[in-house]
Amino acid sequence: MPELKVNHVEITSDFWKRYRELVVKEVLPYQWEVMNDEAGIAISVDPQNNGHDKSSHAVANLKIAAGQQTGHHYGFPFQDTDVYKWLEAAAYSFGYQPNADLRKITDNLIDLIADAQEDDGYLSTYFQIDAPERKFKRLQQSHELYTMGHYIEAGVAYYQATGNQKSLDIATRMADCIDRNFGLGDGQIPGFDGHPEIELALARLYEVTQNEKYLDLAHYFLNQRGQDPHFFDKQLAVDGESTDRDIIRGMQEPDLTYFLAAEPIKDQKVPQGHAVRVVYLCTGMAYVARYTGDKDLLAACHRFWNDLVKRQMYITGNIGSTTSGEALTYDYDLPNDTMYGETCASVGMAFFARQMLNLDAKGEYADVLEKELFNGALSGMSLDGKHFFYVNPLEADPTASKLNPGKSHVLTHRADWFGCACCPANLARLITSVDQYLYTVKEHTILSHQFISNQASFDNDVAITQTNNFPWSGEIHYAVKDPDQVTFKLGLRIPAWSPNFGLTVNGQQQTADVVDGFIYLNVSADTTIELSLDMAVKFMRANNRVSADFGKVAIQRGPIVYAAEAADNPVPLAGYEVSPKDATTYQFDAHLLNGVGSISIAAQRAVPDDPDQPLYSTSDGNRQPAALKLIPYYAWANREEGQMRVWLNREF
Amino acid sequence: MPELKVNHVEITSDFWKRYRELVVKEVLPYQWEVMNDEAGIAISVDPQNNGHDKSSHAVANLKIAAGQQTGHHYGFPFQDTDVYKWLEAAAYSFGYQPNADLRKITDNLIDLIADAQEDDGYLSTYFQIDAPERKFKRLQQSHELYTMGHYIEAGVAYYQATGNQKSLDIATRMADCIDRNFGLGDGQIPGFDGHPEIELALARLYEVTQNEKYLDLAHYFLNQRGQDPHFFDKQLAVDGESTDRDIIRGMQEPDLTYFLAAEPIKDQKVPQGHAVRVVYLCTGMAYVARYTGDKDLLAACHRFWNDLVKRQMYITGNIGSTTSGEALTYDYDLPNDTMYGETCASVGMAFFARQMLNLDAKGEYADVLEKELFNGALSGMSLDGKHFFYVNPLEADPTASKLNPGKSHVLTHRADWFGCACCPANLARLITSVDQYLYTVKEHTILSHQFISNQASFDNDVAITQTNNFPWSGEIHYAVKDPDQVTFKLGLRIPAWSPNFGLTVNGQQQTADVVDGFIYLNVSADTTIELSLDMAVKFMRANNRVSADFGKVAIQRGPIVYAAEAADNPVPLAGYEVSPKDATTYQFDAHLLNGVGSISIAAQRAVPDDPDQPLYSTSDGNRQPAALKLIPYYAWANREEGQMRVWLNREF
Repeated sequence: MPELKVNHVEITSDFWKRYRELVVKEVLPYQWEVMNDEAGIAISVDPQNNGHDKSSHAVANLKIAAGQQTGHHYGFPFQDTDVYKWLEAAAYSFGYQPNADLRKITDNLIDLIADAQEDDGYLSTYFQIDAPERKFKRLQQSHELYTMGHYIEAGVAYYQATGNQKSLDIATRMADCIDRNFGLGDGQIPGFDGHPEIELALARLYEVTQNEKYLDLAHYFLNQRGQDPHFFDKQLAVDGESTDRDIIRGMQEPDLTYFLAAEPIKDQKVPQGHAVRVVYLCTGMAYVARYTGDKDLLAACHRFWNDLVKRQMYITGNIGSTTSGEALTYDYDLPNDTMYGETCASVGMAFFARQMLNLDAKGEYADVLEKELFNGALSGMSLDGKHFFYVNPLEADPTASKLNPGKSHVLTHRADWFGCACCPANLARLITSVDQYLYTVKEHTILSHQFISNQASFDNDVAITQTNNFPWSGEIHYAVKDPDQVTFKLGLRIPAWSPNFGLTVNGQQQTADVVDGFIYLNVSADTTIELSLDMAVKFMRANNRVSADFGKVAIQRGPIVYAAEAADNPVPLAGYEVSPKDATTYQFDAHLLNGVGSISIAAQRAVPDDPDQPLYSTSDGNRQPAALKLIPYYAWANREEGQMRVWLNREF
Repeated sequence: MPELKVNHVEITSDFWKRYRELVVKEVLPYQWEVMNDEAGIAISVDPQNNGHDKSSHAVANLKIAAGQQTGHHYGFPFQDTDVYKWLEAAAYSFGYQPNADLRKITDNLIDLIADAQEDDGYLSTYFQIDAPERKFKRLQQSHELYTMGHYIEAGVAYYQATGNQKSLDIATRMADCIDRNFGLGDGQIPGFDGHPEIELALARLYEVTQNEKYLDLAHYFLNQRGQDPHFFDKQLAVDGESTDRDIIRGMQEPDLTYFLAAEPIKDQKVPQGHAVRVVYLCTGMAYVARYTGDKDLLAACHRFWNDLVKRQMYITGNIGSTTSGEALTYDYDLPNDTMYGETCASVGMAFFARQMLNLDAKGEYADVLEKELFNGALSGMSLDGKHFFYVNPLEADPTASKLNPGKSHVLTHRADWFGCACCPANLARLITSVDQYLYTVKEHTILSHQFISNQASFDNDVAITQTNNFPWSGEIHYAVKDPDQVTFKLGLRIPAWSPNFGLTVNGQQQTADVVDGFIYLNVSADTTIELSLDMAVKFMRANNRVSADFGKVAIQRGPIVYAAEAADNPVPLAGYEVSPKDATTYQFDAHLLNGVGSISIAAQRAVPDDPDQPLYSTSDGNRQPAALKLIPYYAWANREEGQMRVWLNREF
């Protein structure tokens, strides 16, 4: 039997086409202007208050490094990555919307990057411009490998999308530079970057070049992490411990768990620390575990996944329970109003999920991927593609954000841009590459694990056309073309939110066993399939170890988590009580928020108590029936600013 | 009719005698050792991370200023106040427990303070020792008038307790110094202190000296506050705006609302800012409003009281919803697990309540005073008198405090001492003076508003003996002696927590109208009264605008708010659900926590979900009956460290 491979996937989903066209029409041009300091917008104060909020200067930094312009570096030491993530997103967009004007810009950008790269392959404009003597000397905070890793990802994507050899050459020269400088050999640096990213980037470079050196180097970085808990301190002692020497303010404060560097990965029981570092590291771990078969790494992938998903993840897929260090905290600590839930962490979680699917055909990975795509990651961008969330709360109140300093990091409107602008381009590259997230193909099995309408072609003339009106409808139609009568297994995901489903194959109703979240059909000819998913409105509760959600319910329909917003409901939203016994109605409204299905619940609303009565009393208070209208979480904060909440009080 | 005055009150309450003897036996000697750096204890890191945690050095600072020792000042610029509050507490203790050894120490301390005071009356050891050229030049953060105000309070109390004229003279010389330097006259400073205290202190000095100058000066400070919103900035511009010039790190960061200095008091709609500043200012306002009849000030007292008590106060009486700036936030924002609720703020709230009672015979003031005495203030000290809370949370979890940085300020055990040690001595002076808080006497009316057993003597041989076993029993017995048959009104408070009560006068059952929280009896002969209060276990709820408490109940019996603790109940405490329908049992246990009444509720407990199941599900989970044991809030954290919570989830 021939092995199958996916060749091309065209997204036909209305929902995703709109987003993907929005990225091309609005996001990419807008971000390009911002990075060239031509957008004329106010750069929002960074939620972490790190400064660097006057301009982007990201392209200018590259020009200075290339000798085309003079001046100092401005912005974070990893400012280059804004450009690289943008370039990566642009590369993906060519796959569905070729654009000669944009292509001219990106080809020129490749030339600029090549000019900025040093002869030895090194490229990090901050160090080149302002601190050449400190290269690789302060890895705890330098982000040099993180920065180059992002270029490598972009370069690989650009090469794959356009065939531009130069873009790949820059990447291999970078990787070779890193390979020469890092390792346990004489004169090499026996260390690793404070921010994971190079590991997954090198794995991608290995995939495209098949050069084992890059896989070995990625494996080295994963093995070396945490082996010497004093590595960062030793470097700081040489480079200068004074905080005046810091490249990022306050960066010496976090302890090693923040960097996932307190102990070797194989010894770490649960993922802790900076959420984005966690998911980038996990993605690299899963890549390398797959290609090397490293059992310790594989076990760590499963262990970290399990803890993240079962103990540290919000129902929307967001992770990161505290703004301090943008970090994970501890199992079941999931406060909704002081949380972080960074957009980048959800994007990274989607990366991780995709790699876990490559390891094991388990529906739970695709469930989480879907959760991120339709909720926690997507909420990072406004419907107009021009405003972004860094922090994604599950409960927000403009008054609280303004007057309670513990919630000042929770914006209730998306910002134009950020001083630390990691999120906008990260989300853009996920959206433009979403076609790569629909199928996982292994030997003779095609897993179709996302319900995003598409036309996919595989080797041996196999083609699958999926049509649906997901996420609003659960009626999923598949038309499989198999003119050469190739025999393969087609795995269709049965999501955890739809344990009940209907299946019709070639017009015949069928039953099928669900194996790890998938049903499998043996295909060897043209086949039509109708999968009918359970789109009932569900009242979800959290594991009762989550004290923040105890006695509360969240509403979900299909993959979409719903939120109540002040734009639809009189505040305070805390005053509504719902129960699974309440009647609900679902309706699709084409004119609301670019077209969303909204849910109305026959809820109870507490009649607000008299403010002049005592604050505490034995009385029960009054309630009245009230229709509580809910909209998809991803679409919140696209109208007037106001309260929002996902977890609703349960009626008692 | 002759006016009545209270002459002496002896506390006979077992509950309070224990605390008052504890202060004499443990707290005063212990704090004296600490302030002399002889206690050999670890000074806890300050919850606000301000440093100054190596030693107290408070007495040494005075010795250096007095020329008896050399060296630099150490600690906060207001370090002197630790000594003054301790001295004030010692002074009160002489009223119920004369102590020749202690008296020798305090007399010597008065001599030391007199030696430290400058010829012109100035006394603030930080400025005298290390920055004499900066006196009164950085009032935003200098705490000079705050510091001297605390001495004035102590000096007045010491003079009243011992007749030591020197202690009063120091106070009047200080006040005269301030009077010369501050005001709107030529060459005077048209300003005020960043931290209120001098206003209430000057009012107390006026009370004892009857010198109108001090009342006028207090009135000036209240009027001047916020009149020129640039006053602090102007001073900083002259003294040096650089943060290197700051006397307290970070003190330039808060805006003027933190200092209650953004606008004149009469224009401030709600109290905002640092909670302790708020209640100290309010206490001064109420004093001065009473003596001057200033209508704007009087209106502000009522406005601030109303907002604090009806919109910003925890059920335990604690105030201060955020650790950032130890501050109030906004109406109905009362998070239980990230709150501050500083002990000093509750002590100050008791001061404010006492002064409000002097303005109006309203039971609500005495209700709040009682709430602080039995809950929010008292919880600041351990049962052994040697450990203290700065922060008083209503929900705590050692894991959360350790692993969620947003809760790191919430200690789950009382500390030995603090770098900023305002709370321990503040609570000590409240406890030692509690005899002054039981009666409010006005012309021909005696208000007996606290149910703390005592023997009180008044002018004209009137005497009242109150006996009870409060707060455990609600049977209150009064024996009034009136041998001269003086005619007066005796007002007995009917607490808001006991709308139903029984009344027997001279053996006859009676009814009585409750007027503003009091019932009034006309007395003109010996009288015995039995007041029977409602001591049923109450399920309290918060105003439904308080989102943090929505769907939750707190348990109260009499004035005591109850808490669940891990020492009595399997965790997680979030998993218990209670309902007013649940059976409750109350029992007094003489061997538990120095003797407390505990409550057991026939609650439901969620059977902890399987940690390997999905984090979110549609299932309802399992519950089992569980007896939930509650202890008084003030007594929590006196056993092994563990979870605690006041607000319990309501059964649905």
